[in-house]
Amino acid sequence: MDKFIVLLLVGYVTANTQPGLRQNRLGTEVPSLGDTSPGSVWPQPQSQTSTSQTYPVLAEKFAFTYTSSSFRCSLLDEAFKRYQMLIMNAAARSKLHFRPRAPYTITTLDINLMAKCEDYPSLDMNEAYSLDVGESSTQLQAESVWGILRGLETFSQLLWQTETGEILANKTNIIDHPRYSHRGILLDTSRHYLPLSVIFDNLEAMAYNKINVFHWHIVDDQSFPYVSEIYPDLSRKGAYTSLSHIYTPDDVAAVIEFARLRGIRVVPEFDTPGHSQSWGKGQPGLLTPCYSGDKPTGSYGPINPIVDSTYTFIQTLFTELRNVFPDKYIHLGGDEVSFACWQSNPDINNYMKNLNITGKYNELEQIYVQKVLNISGQIGFSYIVWQEVVDNQVQLKDDTVVEVWINNHPDEELAKVTKLGYRALLAAPWYLDYISTGEDWMKYYLEEPSNFNGTDAQKKLLIGGEACLWGEYVDGSNVTPRLWPRASAVAERLWSSKDVNDVTKATPRLHQHRCRMVKRGISAQPLHPGYCVHDWGNI
Amino acid sequence: MDKFIVLLLVGYVTANTQPGLRQNRLGTEVPSLGDTSPGSVWPQPQSQTSTSQTYPVLAEKFAFTYTSSSFRCSLLDEAFKRYQMLIMNAAARSKLHFRPRAPYTITTLDINLMAKCEDYPSLDMNEAYSLDVGESSTQLQAESVWGILRGLETFSQLLWQTETGEILANKTNIIDHPRYSHRGILLDTSRHYLPLSVIFDNLEAMAYNKINVFHWHIVDDQSFPYVSEIYPDLSRKGAYTSLSHIYTPDDVAAVIEFARLRGIRVVPEFDTPGHSQSWGKGQPGLLTPCYSGDKPTGSYGPINPIVDSTYTFIQTLFTELRNVFPDKYIHLGGDEVSFACWQSNPDINNYMKNLNITGKYNELEQIYVQKVLNISGQIGFSYIVWQEVVDNQVQLKDDTVVEVWINNHPDEELAKVTKLGYRALLAAPWYLDYISTGEDWMKYYLEEPSNFNGTDAQKKLLIGGEACLWGEYVDGSNVTPRLWPRASAVAERLWSSKDVNDVTKATPRLHQHRCRMVKRGISAQPLHPGYCVHDWGNI
Repeated sequence: MDKFIVLLLVGYVTANTQPGLRQNRLGTEVPSLGDTSPGSVWPQPQSQTSTSQTYPVLAEKFAFTYTSSSFRCSLLDEAFKRYQMLIMNAAARSKLHFRPRAPYTITTLDINLMAKCEDYPSLDMNEAYSLDVGESSTQLQAESVWGILRGLETFSQLLWQTETGEILANKTNIIDHPRYSHRGILLDTSRHYLPLSVIFDNLEAMAYNKINVFHWHIVDDQSFPYVSEIYPDLSRKGAYTSLSHIYTPDDVAAVIEFARLRGIRVVPEFDTPGHSQSWGKGQPGLLTPCYSGDKPTGSYGPINPIVDSTYTFIQTLFTELRNVFPDKYIHLGGDEVSFACWQSNPDINNYMKNLNITGKYNELEQIYVQKVLNISGQIGFSYIVWQEVVDNQVQLKDDTVVEVWINNHPDEELAKVTKLGYRALLAAPWYLDYISTGEDWMKYYLEEPSNFNGTDAQKKLLIGGEACLWGEYVDGSNVTPRLWPRASAVAERLWSSKDVNDVTKATPRLHQHRCRMVKRGISAQPLHPGYCVHDWGNI
Repeated sequence: MDKFIVLLLVGYVTANTQPGLRQNRLGTEVPSLGDTSPGSVWPQPQSQTSTSQTYPVLAEKFAFTYTSSSFRCSLLDEAFKRYQMLIMNAAARSKLHFRPRAPYTITTLDINLMAKCEDYPSLDMNEAYSLDVGESSTQLQAESVWGILRGLETFSQLLWQTETGEILANKTNIIDHPRYSHRGILLDTSRHYLPLSVIFDNLEAMAYNKINVFHWHIVDDQSFPYVSEIYPDLSRKGAYTSLSHIYTPDDVAAVIEFARLRGIRVVPEFDTPGHSQSWGKGQPGLLTPCYSGDKPTGSYGPINPIVDSTYTFIQTLFTELRNVFPDKYIHLGGDEVSFACWQSNPDINNYMKNLNITGKYNELEQIYVQKVLNISGQIGFSYIVWQEVVDNQVQLKDDTVVEVWINNHPDEELAKVTKLGYRALLAAPWYLDYISTGEDWMKYYLEEPSNFNGTDAQKKLLIGGEACLWGEYVDGSNVTPRLWPRASAVAERLWSSKDVNDVTKATPRLHQHRCRMVKRGISAQPLHPGYCVHDWGNI
């Protein structure tokens, strides 16, 4: 792919931001999609040396084997099955019989796991690995099971198929680790319910992109699909429908297990005190009654922060959550609290008067959030919060992670949050629910998270980022193509080295990666005019 | 659905056009999706009277029957099968047994086709019908088979299911006909190939929306998937891949037949002289060689208008097309011809000098287009052209249809085209490949095609419009949710009365229609937060 061509593609984006003529149809020059080496890896490894020497993979006999010194692990055995299927699926598409050839035929990937298998991924997990496709053996080594998982994905991406059906890998040495330790995707199952099959598809795609956190924005104003065993009315009355638009305990466990096997953490978000309209349906007395003059209007506002029953409820519910979700972290939300209803409510105002905080509703919010944080901490949760919580000067545990989402100088917010000593996540530039014509992935790709003013110590407190696909306009019908490969741009930004930031070079690699996802059954949408050998629906 | 709520929704669109805060998440008020009568029809009939009286449909015994005076028709027999399936599918979802009740149980829809069955739909087809769900019988009557087809779709939409599983229809009288006779959707199979299964899905959806033209933009610069029997190299060398990214004669016939059975015309577009790069790969000598100074660059421009071989080729290819595509009309394109290559070519310039049109490349374009139109006319095609052809003052047959696509005062272009006495199609405001966050369907819905200056006679020359989903950024992975229900907004604009233009009223009806499409297997995307009883992937 030469520079001229990418300028053309960039030109598409520019032209499309202007109304008027359909300028991207002008001209008779057809941009070639460019070529890149087959078997390129996305996100790009920290260090990769490949040569033009290729070795055939004997797909039908291929096996993953532990080296004699390796620890063994049932989680890896499951991964071997998955990757065996991916490799064999490629082989099955060949119409020709495989013919081995010199100098070396890959029949095993030798796995060396250097430490005992961990059960559940964490923020501190070690995802580093090294992979060597050498002259006489192919080896994958890592200090943790998570590194082996990432290396297996890389190995599967190195393999490519010739026109005659042979599967090859180039002689390659890779030493790799992620740049950031938290690389998340937010899916929102409240604005629209997402069926389990759709969540599973997207967890698969996350693994293909080395995304390691599923931020599950599970409930919100619109619906409460989480089935609580202690408070079953929450979903019975708060879900869109109480029979089919819900996540039962078995469903939630299945999502967590599906993710765990792929080294993906599931961080649930139970956003309060705002964004909680659906909670009130099944938990009378939880939300603040709004008033018009001295009469309740029948409408409700944020969670009522002045009654003890609120905190008893939160404590009980969150204790259940602590048992359901194994991740150390819960996301507590705390964003966009509207004060109008609190302002209207005489009991709230009396309460505030007694505390000498009349009119200071952000202080009332502080009181609520502080109590919820304290409860969460006592129960054993660490927490992630949206940036408003720190903006409101709530006192946070040291290991709190603050997520920066307001796309109005997020660099200044990152500087502020990290200066306070909190760890930070960047989400602001990656709200994928905003769509526009053309290749918006380039915009996401070029966002550099570390571009904020701060010391080295502050920079280290930025632990990653998240691509957020809020659910207003997506459900099972369109969420997967809308997320992929746009989120892949974020995945490479968060995994690869800072200097991997050239859209010219990235374009053909991302096209190849998108085609690979399609071939694996993910309905990732196209980047630009062109085709995949195995197009969606045309296999 | 009250006004307040729709203003909220409109607010979403406005807020989302501004960068910055994620304003559509602000506020804790959850817009209800509003209610509309179940069994509402999209696009809205010209005249409908319904009462609250409901009649149960005995789905398991239900049959379509011809009245004694009706003509019979194998095309309708096929339609009966389809609609029987749709009705029975609804019935199958019921977990309760049907219990008939007074006063009248619908067991038949009595069909009265008042004229002999036509084989193939046309621009002049009569789609009017009347449908009566009365006190003792349910009758559908039309003067043509196409009216019966539209009435069958309406009847299927009238049926709705109670929570206990009964299928009901309200007492209803409908007298209906389309406002415009050409209601098209353009799909582009050149920028991306679309598998047959995806085309079929979208033809089904077109029928559900009473769209009656599939404008098949089958070839373009990027690829030539149409398999010509006379010029097999066109696809062999011009398709993305010559084995799988092609439409064989059987494929094309299958698309035409699938569409015909649903009363949908297939109008193929073979766009020349621009947009033809892919043609040159399999037909050496067809395109203009571009020069740098006195040397050919190896690049090619539009079709070469100065050599006889061009017209021999067009005549031969189009004669084949005349036998392949039964519709009276072909779309000849004629848009966006770039003159740069012609300007560089010494042979072109000599030819023009001899004709005394030196430097007047639009006159050269005229010469080419005029010859192609003449050939097409002689072969027996009527034609549709993009607006540039008439702007360039090419002489057109009286029955030419001019498609207005440039979204820069399309009203002025409509006034001009109709003043010249040509029939016109409006596409400019409905380029659905342009996307933006939020409910852009409202914008499409509120476009009033007849808002241009002209006499009544001119207004009558506007015969309809088209929603165009150009293929740069869509393929099988995402084309269906991107098209529906956005194209449904255009479908109602073109079918229903001019005064059906209230987004407040349309919103819940369109939501219901979208859910109906999803239930029928079309992956139409959501309009706004909410759910369908049968969500995509969650049935």
